[in-house]
Amino acid sequence: MSKVKPSLPKGTRDFLPNEVMQRKYIFNTIKNVLEHYGFVEIETPAFERLETLTGKYGEEGDRLLFKILNSGDFLSKVDDTTYQEKNSTKLLKDIAEKGLRYDLTVPLARYVVQHQGDLTFPFKRYHVAPVWRADRPQRGRYQEFYQFDADIISADSLFNDVELSEILIEVFKRLQIPVSIKINNRKLLEALAIYANAPEQLVGITSAIDKLDKVGMEGVTNELEKIGLNENQIQQIKTVLAITDITALEKVFASIEIGRKGIEEIQFIFDNIDPSHVQFDITLARGLTYYTGTIWEVTANNVQMGSISGGGRYDNLTEMFGGQNMSGIGISFGVERIYDVMEELQLFPSNIVQGVKVLLVPREENNTNHCYDLVKKFRSYNISCELFTGNIKKQKQFNYATAKNISFIMEIGSDEIESSIYRIKNISSREEQKLSIDAIIEQLK
Amino acid sequence: MSKVKPSLPKGTRDFLPNEVMQRKYIFNTIKNVLEHYGFVEIETPAFERLETLTGKYGEEGDRLLFKILNSGDFLSKVDDTTYQEKNSTKLLKDIAEKGLRYDLTVPLARYVVQHQGDLTFPFKRYHVAPVWRADRPQRGRYQEFYQFDADIISADSLFNDVELSEILIEVFKRLQIPVSIKINNRKLLEALAIYANAPEQLVGITSAIDKLDKVGMEGVTNELEKIGLNENQIQQIKTVLAITDITALEKVFASIEIGRKGIEEIQFIFDNIDPSHVQFDITLARGLTYYTGTIWEVTANNVQMGSISGGGRYDNLTEMFGGQNMSGIGISFGVERIYDVMEELQLFPSNIVQGVKVLLVPREENNTNHCYDLVKKFRSYNISCELFTGNIKKQKQFNYATAKNISFIMEIGSDEIESSIYRIKNISSREEQKLSIDAIIEQLK
Repeated sequence: MSKVKPSLPKGTRDFLPNEVMQRKYIFNTIKNVLEHYGFVEIETPAFERLETLTGKYGEEGDRLLFKILNSGDFLSKVDDTTYQEKNSTKLLKDIAEKGLRYDLTVPLARYVVQHQGDLTFPFKRYHVAPVWRADRPQRGRYQEFYQFDADIISADSLFNDVELSEILIEVFKRLQIPVSIKINNRKLLEALAIYANAPEQLVGITSAIDKLDKVGMEGVTNELEKIGLNENQIQQIKTVLAITDITALEKVFASIEIGRKGIEEIQFIFDNIDPSHVQFDITLARGLTYYTGTIWEVTANNVQMGSISGGGRYDNLTEMFGGQNMSGIGISFGVERIYDVMEELQLFPSNIVQGVKVLLVPREENNTNHCYDLVKKFRSYNISCELFTGNIKKQKQFNYATAKNISFIMEIGSDEIESSIYRIKNISSREEQKLSIDAIIEQLK
Repeated sequence: MSKVKPSLPKGTRDFLPNEVMQRKYIFNTIKNVLEHYGFVEIETPAFERLETLTGKYGEEGDRLLFKILNSGDFLSKVDDTTYQEKNSTKLLKDIAEKGLRYDLTVPLARYVVQHQGDLTFPFKRYHVAPVWRADRPQRGRYQEFYQFDADIISADSLFNDVELSEILIEVFKRLQIPVSIKINNRKLLEALAIYANAPEQLVGITSAIDKLDKVGMEGVTNELEKIGLNENQIQQIKTVLAITDITALEKVFASIEIGRKGIEEIQFIFDNIDPSHVQFDITLARGLTYYTGTIWEVTANNVQMGSISGGGRYDNLTEMFGGQNMSGIGISFGVERIYDVMEELQLFPSNIVQGVKVLLVPREENNTNHCYDLVKKFRSYNISCELFTGNIKKQKQFNYATAKNISFIMEIGSDEIESSIYRIKNISSREEQKLSIDAIIEQLK
């Protein structure tokens, strides 16, 4: 075996044990809320047939898919004429049939169509898994990263919109992240385009409004001019965007049917949740054109970062795989960003990075058997513990206990063994007690 | 978007919600034991540099690695002379730099060398993750499957061998799988080769003994003849293989130093565990040549299946990446086979596939608001529940509750709303009670 200086592919990461514990804390908090609301977890393979993935994410997406080379003599089936062209795009079709998962949405659509007979509808599923994109890596952007999606398929009832709003509130409450949860409805943006006499410009208007956060109202005005709207139309849009109150908006859209429907939907949500946790925001657009109703976006307060969660209602998820049209609604938790926010605001509870209760350290080599007897005794009381099996040099064991977030350390020599009185030290307070083993068990239980 | 009939790449699987719950039960049981013993979890990326993986698994392994095509115009850097050869092996080097993880051992070695300064030694880590192999798929063999490894790096002390023995006992006890845990020591096999006057034939002898289960003693005899051992030598080996008692073996190996050492090591383990749970077996060889001391193998009793767990002590894990030589010891849980065994023996506890406590079903559309008020009330008492948001046709809701393993169902109409007395039905016993909402909350809490 040749010696290779070890390194990782660009844009990928190892996780150290403490990071894994912190990440699991986030995942488990979200999972617990979702399971409390009746969501179940699914899993799909890391790679899918390229046929399944290609064409679902636009041209850029196709380019960013990681393709897996066919196994064995992958060139054997390539005909010479094609090969001679030396064209990557053409050759690709003949040498790669699989690609790494790019998101969790297309696999969900495939899964629902493929297993339709085995699923229970309304199908409330969550899925947390890595996805891979051949993006240029940069600070905070990786080629391998986790997504965490929760969706309801066959979700006609507006109570699903209510429940997902509640879930967003509950998750960030449990994570103790101060957030703004904004809500809007795609139908109101359609109404806005009609109101401004430019229904055919819905996509352009939405995309202009979507940039409001970045470019300000002036920038939006420029965008709207660019797509050909006149001063009057732009003024009408700006008037509506300034409205923050649903009742006021209701009057403006009184004669636009889709506007009335959008108002009704959003009002329904506010009627069924604690309205103080969610803000209506007509300027919330979200770029994805497949949304048809409710849309959400969550940002962390006082942190410079994009949205950490979001989602919405959509209609034609399963259509791409020939499934019957089923309404869907879903939210996605940006778990990588949530991690960064919690790091920055120091929101991780200290007790989640937690080792065993107690480390037993023999003072001399020949005290080890006695230590191990105590280890077995502790374990019989379900007290987690470790025997220090490393090289015995004073202070190293203490470092071991500190690094592994162990709560107590007991160093055991012939004095302790003879007297049956043991010293137990609290690692964080450095306080030491002398106790019988039964008293120690009582304390650690 | 074109419509594609959805399917999966061969050798890969989706998991339905109930399967996910059962798999998580296995993973969590093993995790809980390991964490109780001070093991911490790590994560590594799904793909590694091919440089890291190639040459570590033999020629067949290299062939079975899934290679990832370089992004973008992957042919642009291939020079024409190389390209003209149309040779898959040669072209591969220029068009693929990454490969999917083949096991968790090589990533561990890389990880330990790369993060040495950030780790605490003895480093007890576990890692549970999918690995990928381009093997021909067949019943029970997949191209994507999970491995679950626990290793201790820098593990000179024999107490590590003791602890891993205890962990094997504890895990299968908690999973309630009746197993045989066999233990041997590589040094005894070395002693055996010396005893038979064929020390240079250690690998051949080990590999012959390794086949004992499949080919019987006659087959082993044939194998030993094939590698050139004479009748006398073979007889000596067979005599030793018939010994089941450590004390008896001690006498046979009395004059062979490495034999005495092996006996000492294995005796040390038996002195520190409950010996009734583990069997010494001199015929346990395990093919992997890198083991240097203790070896384990676990099989499920009364099930036709290979080993479901195994492991051993090894020496030079980090050497392949230029790390200093660190002793290591580890075990691997065959989680896919453990799942199959538990299915076959029906060992999954029924309560692990568990939905919410109660499903609330409006009898008429206009009872939904009242139902949702109750949902909110239940949740405020931390009672998990779901509002049925599907189409209301009698019996469908009951199917929904059954399929999702929900414990109780409450159908609510105007009668219940007016009288404030609700009917709650136990899904499994079909027993129904009529109670006030406070009484129901008391019962569900």
